[in-house]
Amino acid sequence: MSEDRILHPGLRARLMSAEQAAALIQPGETVAMSGFTGSGYPKAVPQALAAHIDRAHARGEDFRINLLTGASTAPELDGALAQVDGLAMRMPFQSDPNARKRINAGKLDYLDIHLSHVAQHVWFGFYNAIDTAVVEVSAILEDGSLVPTTSVGNNKTWLDLAKKVVIEVNRWQLPEMLGMHDIYYGTALPPERKPIPMVRGDERIGQTTLRCDPAKVAAVVLTDAPDRNSPFNPIDDDSRRIAGHLIEFLKHEVARGRLPANLLPLQSGVGNIPNAVLAGLADSGFRGLEAYTEVIQDGMLDLLQSGVLRYASCTGFALSPDANEEFRRNLDFYRSRIILRTQEISNHPEMVRRLGCIGMNGMIEADLYGNINSTHVMGSSIMNGIGGSGDFARNGFLSAFLSNSTAKGGSISSIVPMVSHVDHTEHDVAVIVTEQGLADLRGLSPKQRARQVIAHCAHPDYRDALQDYFERACRDSYGKHTPHLLPEALSWHQRWLDTGTMKA
Amino acid sequence: MSEDRILHPGLRARLMSAEQAAALIQPGETVAMSGFTGSGYPKAVPQALAAHIDRAHARGEDFRINLLTGASTAPELDGALAQVDGLAMRMPFQSDPNARKRINAGKLDYLDIHLSHVAQHVWFGFYNAIDTAVVEVSAILEDGSLVPTTSVGNNKTWLDLAKKVVIEVNRWQLPEMLGMHDIYYGTALPPERKPIPMVRGDERIGQTTLRCDPAKVAAVVLTDAPDRNSPFNPIDDDSRRIAGHLIEFLKHEVARGRLPANLLPLQSGVGNIPNAVLAGLADSGFRGLEAYTEVIQDGMLDLLQSGVLRYASCTGFALSPDANEEFRRNLDFYRSRIILRTQEISNHPEMVRRLGCIGMNGMIEADLYGNINSTHVMGSSIMNGIGGSGDFARNGFLSAFLSNSTAKGGSISSIVPMVSHVDHTEHDVAVIVTEQGLADLRGLSPKQRARQVIAHCAHPDYRDALQDYFERACRDSYGKHTPHLLPEALSWHQRWLDTGTMKA
Repeated sequence: MSEDRILHPGLRARLMSAEQAAALIQPGETVAMSGFTGSGYPKAVPQALAAHIDRAHARGEDFRINLLTGASTAPELDGALAQVDGLAMRMPFQSDPNARKRINAGKLDYLDIHLSHVAQHVWFGFYNAIDTAVVEVSAILEDGSLVPTTSVGNNKTWLDLAKKVVIEVNRWQLPEMLGMHDIYYGTALPPERKPIPMVRGDERIGQTTLRCDPAKVAAVVLTDAPDRNSPFNPIDDDSRRIAGHLIEFLKHEVARGRLPANLLPLQSGVGNIPNAVLAGLADSGFRGLEAYTEVIQDGMLDLLQSGVLRYASCTGFALSPDANEEFRRNLDFYRSRIILRTQEISNHPEMVRRLGCIGMNGMIEADLYGNINSTHVMGSSIMNGIGGSGDFARNGFLSAFLSNSTAKGGSISSIVPMVSHVDHTEHDVAVIVTEQGLADLRGLSPKQRARQVIAHCAHPDYRDALQDYFERACRDSYGKHTPHLLPEALSWHQRWLDTGTMKA
Repeated sequence: MSEDRILHPGLRARLMSAEQAAALIQPGETVAMSGFTGSGYPKAVPQALAAHIDRAHARGEDFRINLLTGASTAPELDGALAQVDGLAMRMPFQSDPNARKRINAGKLDYLDIHLSHVAQHVWFGFYNAIDTAVVEVSAILEDGSLVPTTSVGNNKTWLDLAKKVVIEVNRWQLPEMLGMHDIYYGTALPPERKPIPMVRGDERIGQTTLRCDPAKVAAVVLTDAPDRNSPFNPIDDDSRRIAGHLIEFLKHEVARGRLPANLLPLQSGVGNIPNAVLAGLADSGFRGLEAYTEVIQDGMLDLLQSGVLRYASCTGFALSPDANEEFRRNLDFYRSRIILRTQEISNHPEMVRRLGCIGMNGMIEADLYGNINSTHVMGSSIMNGIGGSGDFARNGFLSAFLSNSTAKGGSISSIVPMVSHVDHTEHDVAVIVTEQGLADLRGLSPKQRARQVIAHCAHPDYRDALQDYFERACRDSYGKHTPHLLPEALSWHQRWLDTGTMKA
């Protein structure tokens, strides 16, 4: 059964079970795996490794690994390894409930890294050397090169740098995807770096397969298992309003001559609200849009189908099961319209700045002065991570942050006097959008921003309290550039911890 | 007397006094001026404008302008205009005591912008259109092109976009500087951007003069006045220790093979501590270093003289009067070793990432988890601004932040439980250095970082209190990823406001 998928005889000879492959990974190793938002992650070896670790723990042995990936993965990877307490360190992004629980219990060290930084930091030697890479592919070609699957992430770097490599060949993945990937081998360490030779987001600058020295391949494992992404929520009225405000703003920018009629390449974070924005764009009248982003989610397939979106460049898919079926059924259509790149290129500051990407990302909370918290609940508890939002917010044309104005049944205001953690500073935020409206912060001083945020983004239940804080801060603050009352600045968060609501 | 400096006859015909030129600027105008850290700013028109505004105010008239520059300037510009309350809005950076006082009194709107963002945001139309540009040059050539002086900053953008232009021809500036500048006219608005054709920091990619449509030039004013930069403090023991820790670290990185023997291009913030680092490099044994930075300060001239530094690329000078004399005496020596660029290129994310710059910037405070406050005293009062530190910290090879461990006679700890304002997030900070030592935060989770910061950076007077906060936060925090006790997190700052010391 392996003959059509493993064309390299030497590598076919390394076929073994997931259990045998997992046994090659030793306690304390730094293991780099494929996977980016529930696509292209190894489906069998991580679970076999988790079982292996579980048995070791039952014998009283210490067995944990450091785990690197592209971004978040799925229950079969992060979930399984976190469940058995098999992780000592995790980076650069996660969204698994089990892993999150352990991180927030102080039992798992998590490094939350800009996605464009990961590959280069590993090349720079800032982290431990990579002992083992575990990478999913759809096929191994005769020359040993690897056909990528539904995400590329950091796989190029993992395969280049790992001491030993475990390859999962997943028969569920379509070998017909060959040709959709663009793996750029022109990166280098400074001082040997050259310009990235790309001026349009739909250009191809690399090759279609991943290189891997067959001598490093310690195991090849056959799997046949689907990617697993959660379905998106049905689009609700508030998400529709958020999308409406942002799209109205973009049309206004076109009318003012600040954006071309087909905008600039869109980056869209993963989540229900960014997905609602994509849905909103379908009926917006825009044509010929471009996406230079990390992840393709459901809404983008529809936009490609309707011709609203001309192409999408990404590093991975986050498709619901239904959208995944649609993609697989119409692969020929999508093949010419989707490019999967390494995440160092999909998120590269050079490309983001050159293309002038429009960043649209979710947030946990914003404060009066336009600082954004994307990662921490109540200042101390991680949600997921910063992902690529910083790559786009700092270096793109425009950065928009989106959220409902309240959370947890209205007990939390997403607009607070001071954010409890900062992921995007006041220097990096152009636009904040809630279902209440849109605050355009460009060209405004801190106090001017506060007035916009209160008027346009805050929920009516919290608007008066924010206005009251702001007025008293303007009167009593030590400095009046960014007025704050320090004993109160974080009191809304503490009140929620104490009473279950931010309301006074 | 103008004949040798103004070779374009049409522009010679526009010669007038500073007072006449200043009278061309109307109330409410957005005025863009040359100037970057006390060099290359207009010397006469701003003062004449200030006098003009003062008279208007005396007559009961409203007269304020919005002022854009490259970065900070000098008393003759920011000082004069702030003194007469002539500024409604100021961006993107300032360091003038008068301006700062007005900003912190809530009377002047200040926009604190990444220096690499300024030109493009103006081109994007994010701010008001520029009514008048006031730009210092050393000469006007026969074709109307302009010879830049001791800073380039945003002058190219100002001259391209302003409706009318006022040129100050400063006889004090050396026309022999012709050839030291590299003005790149290859930038464009997205989607028309191309790669910046530079792979080494000492390459020249542009022309030596600034273009300006003579038809837009409303006035030419002759001046003869020196740049004015404050002398640096003599290097004290603490600065020497900070420099020592950082240089030891850099040597260690070379020994580990993570940096070439001549390092990677250095970016150095302006100030006494970065200047001490430069002085420390003189005796460090390093050779053939490179600087790709914003500003050349005293220490760099010495490094160029001794051959420790091979070249320096910048956008302006911040030289003390003595160093300025040295530069002018030995211009022929420095001409081949110094390149002055526009600040969109000196700070460009594409170049910073490609070259792999090592960012070394001062800070006001750092917190346990590696967040950096570069701009705000006690969370609300602006010091100067973020300048270019964010351009380098986010996009370079490595970012180091430097400060004494205490300030104000020991009453302020520069290491605090939570910074009162965030300019550089935990995601962007590799190394923190005080005279106590160096914390290497690479590859560490938040709690691991806290242990390094407390052990290596905190002053002994505050170390126990930080350790106590951290331990209690690890025990009692809502989440244990980034442990915090919210009611206490900013209490050190409030204590200083209440009692004059952060000590309990």
